[in-house]
Amino acid sequence: MTYTAPLADMRFALREVAGLERIAALPGYEHATDDTVDAVLEEAAKLAGNGLAPLNRDGDKAGAKLENGVVRTAPGFTGIYKEFVDGGWNSLPFDPEFGGQGMPWLLATTVQEMWQAANMGFGLVLLLNQGAIDAIHHHGSPAQKAAYLPKMISGEWTGTMNLTEPQAGSDLGQLKSRAVKDGDHYLISGQKIFITYGEHDLTENIVHLVLARTPDAPAGVRGISLFIVPKFLPGPDGKPGKRNDLRCVSLEHKLGIHASPTCVMSFGDDGGATGWLVGEEGRGLSYMFTMMNNARLSVGIQGLAIAERAYQQAADFARTRVQSKDDGKPDPKPVSIVHHPDVRRMLMTMRAQIEAMRALGYYTAAGIDGALKHPDKETARKTQDRVDLLIPIVKAWFTDLGNEIASIGVQVHGGMGFIEETGAAQHLRDARILPIYEGTNGIQARDLVGRKVTKDGGETMLGLVREMRALVGELKKAPGDDLAAIAAGVAASADALENATKWVAQTAKGELVNALAGSVPFLRLAGTALGGWLLGKSALVAHGKLEAKLITARFFAEVILPPALAQLGPLKAAGRTVFALKDEQF
Amino acid sequence: MTYTAPLADMRFALREVAGLERIAALPGYEHATDDTVDAVLEEAAKLAGNGLAPLNRDGDKAGAKLENGVVRTAPGFTGIYKEFVDGGWNSLPFDPEFGGQGMPWLLATTVQEMWQAANMGFGLVLLLNQGAIDAIHHHGSPAQKAAYLPKMISGEWTGTMNLTEPQAGSDLGQLKSRAVKDGDHYLISGQKIFITYGEHDLTENIVHLVLARTPDAPAGVRGISLFIVPKFLPGPDGKPGKRNDLRCVSLEHKLGIHASPTCVMSFGDDGGATGWLVGEEGRGLSYMFTMMNNARLSVGIQGLAIAERAYQQAADFARTRVQSKDDGKPDPKPVSIVHHPDVRRMLMTMRAQIEAMRALGYYTAAGIDGALKHPDKETARKTQDRVDLLIPIVKAWFTDLGNEIASIGVQVHGGMGFIEETGAAQHLRDARILPIYEGTNGIQARDLVGRKVTKDGGETMLGLVREMRALVGELKKAPGDDLAAIAAGVAASADALENATKWVAQTAKGELVNALAGSVPFLRLAGTALGGWLLGKSALVAHGKLEAKLITARFFAEVILPPALAQLGPLKAAGRTVFALKDEQF
Repeated sequence: MTYTAPLADMRFALREVAGLERIAALPGYEHATDDTVDAVLEEAAKLAGNGLAPLNRDGDKAGAKLENGVVRTAPGFTGIYKEFVDGGWNSLPFDPEFGGQGMPWLLATTVQEMWQAANMGFGLVLLLNQGAIDAIHHHGSPAQKAAYLPKMISGEWTGTMNLTEPQAGSDLGQLKSRAVKDGDHYLISGQKIFITYGEHDLTENIVHLVLARTPDAPAGVRGISLFIVPKFLPGPDGKPGKRNDLRCVSLEHKLGIHASPTCVMSFGDDGGATGWLVGEEGRGLSYMFTMMNNARLSVGIQGLAIAERAYQQAADFARTRVQSKDDGKPDPKPVSIVHHPDVRRMLMTMRAQIEAMRALGYYTAAGIDGALKHPDKETARKTQDRVDLLIPIVKAWFTDLGNEIASIGVQVHGGMGFIEETGAAQHLRDARILPIYEGTNGIQARDLVGRKVTKDGGETMLGLVREMRALVGELKKAPGDDLAAIAAGVAASADALENATKWVAQTAKGELVNALAGSVPFLRLAGTALGGWLLGKSALVAHGKLEAKLITARFFAEVILPPALAQLGPLKAAGRTVFALKDEQF
Repeated sequence: MTYTAPLADMRFALREVAGLERIAALPGYEHATDDTVDAVLEEAAKLAGNGLAPLNRDGDKAGAKLENGVVRTAPGFTGIYKEFVDGGWNSLPFDPEFGGQGMPWLLATTVQEMWQAANMGFGLVLLLNQGAIDAIHHHGSPAQKAAYLPKMISGEWTGTMNLTEPQAGSDLGQLKSRAVKDGDHYLISGQKIFITYGEHDLTENIVHLVLARTPDAPAGVRGISLFIVPKFLPGPDGKPGKRNDLRCVSLEHKLGIHASPTCVMSFGDDGGATGWLVGEEGRGLSYMFTMMNNARLSVGIQGLAIAERAYQQAADFARTRVQSKDDGKPDPKPVSIVHHPDVRRMLMTMRAQIEAMRALGYYTAAGIDGALKHPDKETARKTQDRVDLLIPIVKAWFTDLGNEIASIGVQVHGGMGFIEETGAAQHLRDARILPIYEGTNGIQARDLVGRKVTKDGGETMLGLVREMRALVGELKKAPGDDLAAIAAGVAASADALENATKWVAQTAKGELVNALAGSVPFLRLAGTALGGWLLGKSALVAHGKLEAKLITARFFAEVILPPALAQLGPLKAAGRTVFALKDEQF
């Protein structure tokens, strides 16, 4: 039940798919040399494998505990968190002006995969802090940045996102928390739920970013503002001073990620928590959206990470569990189950989709770097469009696969998979939150269809289709059965994705609800097609050198692609029947 | 979080799909009149909904507990079990000679769906007892039948299946438990794991059926014999007498079905447990196989049942949770989420597959009755062949769907789905055992491909394909778009299933491992095609009367079928790549 960062495949995806060399050549990333990147990966792999991974199962068993208003994280968490702060791991991708290392998001994403695979319950504190830093960095005042960013980037303090309320989940327009101006600050009151690491014992302060409504604000989302509401108000020396009027009133009893405290937070029980407005009133939700790309990519990476963790454990079990004879041989002696055809099919199904996710995830992260740093504005803009299109796909497709693959991991274990001691079931329990939080996967599909594809009539997606077709040409020129089979798969993907995209773009104009009824099948088709494309790219590089990579890409093309491409009919048909029943007939 | 037996759809499937009228006309089933069947269904629905369902969540929370060798079931379980015994519910399908009611398995299966949907953790004690009764009924001596069957059929005693050992899971040939002859009985010793309801406080005695090896027996499966090993040895008066040398040494800590005690059983710690041979030495495994059809059908029904439970809960949540505006209307007011296109798609996906499972499950149960009772031997034999073919499909396809549908149920709930109090997550946790126990789904697919399809070159399956094509003809003659779309789906299913079956039958001859590599995709294709066929039959009956049934069948044909039929390519292709990696490359 250990975890070993898959450095070889990570390096391959970084270099051959995401184009690390090109990213490192962008102005501001010159220090991301090959040597530095390698050193970071290797140190991170050690910390993930030796430090974080061994705490995963105990973290699940012990969970986070609330006692007298204090949240105690699981055994070992405060110690390992200190190692993160001491090692400067929180600061990797952030602005050097505030103590960051200014490394590419591509590298930070690769390292993120390791933290989340090793210990998702712990990894969440890093993920949320990263999002909060991003929000303050983009929208905070100079004074706010100076007061909070250095502490958060070092990891001495952590950040949270306080969005959800009981009546306002996906629909934040319904939120009721109030913020009343009081001199240079606001008094915040209200209850927030599902607040990840809303309270904990890892740091001396916690910086809550809270969405709330000012008294005269209009109804709906335009009335929502964003506030910085620290647990302890920073004193004149910058250190945590007076305790703010906020507290964690309870922890949720969840299916998984037990080590991550999911808090019900109460603000202003004693008259109002002190909060400072970020940016302008009424813009809170739009500020949240600017950081959502980043957070949604991170959640997608969690899907990849938990899949990798489940795969490693399943492969290890399959290699060591001896049961039944080899079907391909006369010898009646029982063999390890990795020899059994269906067990191998399961392992290949895990592996092929993991490699496809890694390729697409790192490719998307490289896009974030390109959009941020490319000196040509038009190139940067187009890259940003592509990132915007890919983010909901990464978030939803990866997290659906994270669940499917964790479930296959349980299945490979047979009866032992259902026993908690084995640890396989934890991955499934942990993975189940991923299609839900940071915007449900239905909302991702809605974003993809109703916003990302619609806004340019599908042009950005069709640009990807053109690249897929160019790859088909290259694959066909190369020798061998494997590449020919992969070329056929990528060609079919391009056709299906083009057809689906045009239908979606057209249908969303006049019959939005019909396009939305097919949005999840569309996203599945798109994710699988794009993943297969990048695996095809990988296969072209791997050909003649990395036999396993080539085989895996062919398996993806021949076994994984067809049912996903067959979503073309369903995505168009769903709207015909989905609205026909009356509500009470369900 | 309640459960209401879906009596309308159950009756429809019983009468219009499974042909209850035909079954009730078989000799020996004359008492299964419409009135009697209706009365049974209604009483069972009450007990399931009002008695069992309310204990489900508490059963999960409390779990079964082992204290000083005694297993205490969850609160309320002893009381409700007494209601089962008093009501004679255990005896429904069994031989009147031993106190059974001699009702069709079709009716027992329908009622079984209710118990398992209402409370799977409880339902397992009924399911295991049923299997044990079946084994003794088929293979026990007259004296054994007289001593055990009346008590087990009444439910005063329950039965268990003691198969698995730590080193012998799917591969029972490796089991080591020993049975040494000692006069008229045997002394049994060894450790068994994963014994469902191996110890509990519901009854005064427990009848263990134990697989063990006699001293001179050959290695492998031919050395295994089956023994009756009761917890208390029946005295001369038939009542429980001396305590036998066996005990539950621990309970497993599992992902789900917490209310069901999963025991590690130790036999013979004090010299040997007294056991009586069933049938002949060395035939133990074959005896187990004769009852497996029944048990595997029951487990498939559990998959259907948990899906129905999850669906009811999700539909209820979707109708009441208000969040975001209706996409199809200008009104900005938030509406219940059942109006949102993707939520409806999720509910339709659950519903359509549930109706397809119910149709195929009851159809298969009716086949068991036909095979048992049909006066024409040739018809009975052919019906048995069809049942044998369908059983692995029912077991594996239903239980995979049970998991997928329970997971959709969580998703419909959004963040609340991840919180244990909601109850949606329990269904997912409970469902996860189903693809594993009673033969993993990989083993079902292996049975389908390597045994059931191969033994007659696919002829039985092709017989079903011919029936599918006959239905296509009927559907095409009927009016309306819906039936036309369904006809197209069934026609495509027939083509794909025929093609796949012929390939499998052919390939299994010369290249078994390649056929096995595609066995799980084949089973998925077959299950979905057959489910769609029976929904098509249902639609023909429902046309003009039951609009919702028709719509649901069309949704299945247009949205659910295509990706499953697209397993045709993958099932043939898998063998090409699945064996290419070296073991250590995984």
